[in-house]
Amino acid sequence: MSTTIAENKIIRYRGTELNTKGWQQEAVLRMLMNNLDKEVAEIPEELVVYGGIGKAARNWESFDAIVESLKNLEDDETLLVQSGKPVVIFKTHTDAPRVLLANSNIVPAYANWDTFHELDKKGLMMYGQMTAGSWIYIGSQGIVQGTYETFAELAKQHFNGTLQGTITVTAGLGGMGGAQPLSVTMNGGVCIAIDVEEWRIDRRIETRYTDVKTDSLDEAIRLANEAKAEGKALSIGLVGNAAEILPEMIKRNFIPDALTDQTSAHDPLNGYVPTGLSIEEANKLRASDPEEYVKRSKASMAVHVKAMLEMMEKGAITFDYGNNIRQVAKDEGVENAFDFPGFVPAYIRPQFCEGKGPFRWVALSGDPEDIYKTDEAILREFSDNEHLCNWIRMAQEKIEFQGLPSRICWLGYGERARFGKILNDMVASGELKAPIVIGRDHLDSGSVASPNRETEAMKDGSDVVADWPILNAMVNAVGGATWVSVHHGGGVGMGYSLHAGVVIVADGTKEAEARLQRVLTTDPGMGVVRHVDAGYDIAINKARETGMKIPMLDKRSDQN
Amino acid sequence: MSTTIAENKIIRYRGTELNTKGWQQEAVLRMLMNNLDKEVAEIPEELVVYGGIGKAARNWESFDAIVESLKNLEDDETLLVQSGKPVVIFKTHTDAPRVLLANSNIVPAYANWDTFHELDKKGLMMYGQMTAGSWIYIGSQGIVQGTYETFAELAKQHFNGTLQGTITVTAGLGGMGGAQPLSVTMNGGVCIAIDVEEWRIDRRIETRYTDVKTDSLDEAIRLANEAKAEGKALSIGLVGNAAEILPEMIKRNFIPDALTDQTSAHDPLNGYVPTGLSIEEANKLRASDPEEYVKRSKASMAVHVKAMLEMMEKGAITFDYGNNIRQVAKDEGVENAFDFPGFVPAYIRPQFCEGKGPFRWVALSGDPEDIYKTDEAILREFSDNEHLCNWIRMAQEKIEFQGLPSRICWLGYGERARFGKILNDMVASGELKAPIVIGRDHLDSGSVASPNRETEAMKDGSDVVADWPILNAMVNAVGGATWVSVHHGGGVGMGYSLHAGVVIVADGTKEAEARLQRVLTTDPGMGVVRHVDAGYDIAINKARETGMKIPMLDKRSDQN
Ligand SMILES: NC(=O)c1ccc[n+]([C@@H]2O[C@H](COP(=O)([O-])OP(=O)(O)OC[C@H]3O[C@@H](n4cnc5c(N)ncnc54)[C@H](O)[C@@H]3O)[C@@H](O)[C@H]2O)c1
Ligand SMILES: NC(=O)c1ccc[n+]([C@@H]2O[C@H](COP(=O)([O-])OP(=O)(O)OC[C@H]3O[C@@H](n4cnc5c(N)ncnc54)[C@H](O)[C@@H]3O)[C@@H](O)[C@H]2O)c1
Repeated sequence: MSTTIAENKIIRYRGTELNTKGWQQEAVLRMLMNNLDKEVAEIPEELVVYGGIGKAARNWESFDAIVESLKNLEDDETLLVQSGKPVVIFKTHTDAPRVLLANSNIVPAYANWDTFHELDKKGLMMYGQMTAGSWIYIGSQGIVQGTYETFAELAKQHFNGTLQGTITVTAGLGGMGGAQPLSVTMNGGVCIAIDVEEWRIDRRIETRYTDVKTDSLDEAIRLANEAKAEGKALSIGLVGNAAEILPEMIKRNFIPDALTDQTSAHDPLNGYVPTGLSIEEANKLRASDPEEYVKRSKASMAVHVKAMLEMMEKGAITFDYGNNIRQVAKDEGVENAFDFPGFVPAYIRPQFCEGKGPFRWVALSGDPEDIYKTDEAILREFSDNEHLCNWIRMAQEKIEFQGLPSRICWLGYGERARFGKILNDMVASGELKAPIVIGRDHLDSGSVASPNRETEAMKDGSDVVADWPILNAMVNAVGGATWVSVHHGGGVGMGYSLHAGVVIVADGTKEAEARLQRVLTTDPGMGVVRHVDAGYDIAINKARETGMKIPMLDKRSDQN
Repeated sequence: MSTTIAENKIIRYRGTELNTKGWQQEAVLRMLMNNLDKEVAEIPEELVVYGGIGKAARNWESFDAIVESLKNLEDDETLLVQSGKPVVIFKTHTDAPRVLLANSNIVPAYANWDTFHELDKKGLMMYGQMTAGSWIYIGSQGIVQGTYETFAELAKQHFNGTLQGTITVTAGLGGMGGAQPLSVTMNGGVCIAIDVEEWRIDRRIETRYTDVKTDSLDEAIRLANEAKAEGKALSIGLVGNAAEILPEMIKRNFIPDALTDQTSAHDPLNGYVPTGLSIEEANKLRASDPEEYVKRSKASMAVHVKAMLEMMEKGAITFDYGNNIRQVAKDEGVENAFDFPGFVPAYIRPQFCEGKGPFRWVALSGDPEDIYKTDEAILREFSDNEHLCNWIRMAQEKIEFQGLPSRICWLGYGERARFGKILNDMVASGELKAPIVIGRDHLDSGSVASPNRETEAMKDGSDVVADWPILNAMVNAVGGATWVSVHHGGGVGMGYSLHAGVVIVADGTKEAEARLQRVLTTDPGMGVVRHVDAGYDIAINKARETGMKIPMLDKRSDQN
């Protein structure tokens, strides 16, 4: 579809006037549009939001039908969306979700990229990624705190609490990966972030996620070393292919202090560019001979991971950043690909144990003032949580809004329900101009089964058990979330994960208050329970302290 | 666990006195117990209900904790069960399900028997089959009508509407397979049903599902030929191994008119007995060398399928009966294993298009009179449906109750909601002694993705798309079903299916009436929608006639 036609379809609804029959429907409509806003989505004219080919609707016909359905949807109806296509509207009830979605789910024995592409070609499926197909992507800002927390924890574990005076190398400045340079500089460090597509770097510079750009490796190294020596924070976007640049760095004896990668390696066809090809050549090959493309792509990933392993041996603190690149390298014969850990077991799991994860909210009014007021509420109500308050202040200063104004902040079990009520009260009192949408990434505490990422190396060996995201989706839907989704694939690609999303609207009503209380309790609650069941003490303590009803809790901890 | 301890734990609650805080909880408790009732379950002392190792709870500790949880569960609480283990109780609301279950779900890339057995051994998982882990198995009676309908349609397509004067050969007289001989005789035919375990045949004879038993092939053939010649209905249980007997039949030039199989071939370790071993030897080998067992088991299935193919060539109407034996044979090198069709595309899909499938209800009172009264209601309210009324009369006459009295009957979209209200009214008026539980198999119109069975050979090629069962589960949970489950594996084994279950209680209240209306509409409705989306005219007409809201319906049928 041409950019202009797409732009005509993607409408920026703002203010307090409804285009639908109620705020819940309106919230869905505005968030769908926002997912595809040109400030937010990577390639809106192809319905691609982020993460390779993560889409918001199966095709433009489906998009139109979804919009039409939302505009006519009654307060007691529920629209069902199957891999980006609206398939039926059922009469349910006012406390039911307005939309239920299932995206990219394939019977397990066939759950691979080949089958997916075949179905995709037949028009029977789309790739939902995580927040793309579930309409709660908010641009790179959505991942910033998670990335910040990861680097902060890395700094704590390895560099005395700060990245000052260290250099981090990474690749991939896409929708999610673009948060890396900013997160490193927020932690005081220097970052060289490689991307093969120059426009991606330009985009990060426009939104102040990256400071400077170069296409010279030597220049990048010089700038980085200078900043490191001066203890200054600096992020450098380096145009190039990571699988070529990393070996070059090794040749020059340049070994960074920390090393990771966020190319879209989970999708060898659409997310990763093999070495030896210009972007134009790569695009041509992808279209003319996808098999050959995938072959080269996987071979390049093996080279890429081997270079990471070598740098690790030479002292770089190395971790996988959730794109499943280790698995591909291993399948390609790099036996020790899993020698460096994933970011979740290395840095994030303790937060998951308390139900914490990338919680977020969006001002449907479109007015940034609404978000600043909610910032104030956090600073006031959670003033005892210094880390959190620091984050809010830093976010206000450094993070540009993209599309609808929004905020991300890792809250956990108990905190989310409490804050949900505060937000709802602020809407009710008129302090905020319009309702607030509350959601999270699928990458959360109790919503995902992903053995190479969120559930890597679980204490009890339950990495691949996938009952949890399904229970999560069902209990959130039942509680009255506004929309709920179950996806397969996502950030680690076909076959490697199942996960659920949830979004709920605070419209200031008493009914919404009750729904918020339920959903914002069960959702992070599932995270605590999942980690209790796996035997984590932090989670067990959290469950005890908060009086959660866990039938076999005592049995469980007796065993530990 | 010893049989006595198990029997002490499995209590037959009957009558109108509650052992819990409400009828919804009571229904769950009684149905869990009923699933394990010795009249119903295949091996209650191992918690095995049917279908190989399909279980009702992960282990006895979990069973106890589930029972305890149900007894204390409030009217606004929801218990979550993860692969047969109770993991948390959340406060939800009175219209929410009392229990949500997810069983045997594994991240797709690992969704195979090896991983399952590993998790099972670690105590992290159980096999939920379909109705075993979701507590709505009602013994062989649960499958009788489906099996009857299958043979009736086969008779219609190939034998002028009756099996009189024909011989059908099959194997497997387990929980489900045991329905075959009765279904054949109900259609007027002769059946030789082979089972390797004599006690299974005895059991079918006790409940009048099978007429006679023999361990002599020659005797079986003689009896069958005699009955065929006389045009009499007769079912013969033949003790033996199907992979040995079928080749022997071919040697004797005995080719049946119809041929199928319902051994638990979906599970090569626990469900199928390889040739050349006595039961004792098989049990020993299974324990001492499971790998060797599986190897032999698969090799025997290849022999078994080859014999079926040969008989087919020689004129037997041959079909797969949903145990995935073709897939195993194919993996073993029998290239043309899929030359005979599955029973769904061959005989059942037209019913699925109208939302029809194995609907069932159970009298919680335990009083058979309650079921007879509901039979009368069907005969009265659906008197225009002759086929249905015939079924009810035949069922009354021929089907023994097992455990709680219950009835099965294939109703579709529209009919289910209508009958749900009738049942609820009968409870309200006191005509029935206690509430009624309403449910269905996972093998239903809109609740399963299973490319070798329920969704084999879909018109649009969407056989492996698995979004549907997940949407089904979510919308039924939201509507207020009493319990909802999502399972992986089931009748075709690990990797080959995802499916959802739903059960709802008619307790005579107005609230239940509203919930029944919703759930008994959305559930079969999903079946219609799934087949509309795949382009089936019967479904498209049904949707049009009944005014379902399908956003892209017109677009869809314009294409057809
Ligand atoms: N860590 C997390 O929290 C997290 C969260 C979500 C996603 N992810 C994963 O991170 C990856 C990136 O996500 P995204 O949304 O930024 O994806 P994206 O598709 O928007 O961006 C990928 C970027 O990688 C670049 N790239 C591809 N091949 C390259 C190569 N050989 N060398 C250098 N650059 C190359 C592309 O030009 C593009 O800019 C995905 O695999 C995603 O699943 C991680
Ligand atoms: N068609 C349907 O509607 C439908 C529905 C549910 C299940 N199924 C499938 O049918 C199969 C049977 O289900 P079930 O509940 O009866 O299982 P079950 O495990 O209770 O019974 C299986 C029977 O097969 C016998 N058997 C095993 N190997 C044999 C051999 N080599 N020769 C002869 N007999 C042998 C066993 O002794 C046992 O009696 C399963 O695979 C199930 O998934 C079909």
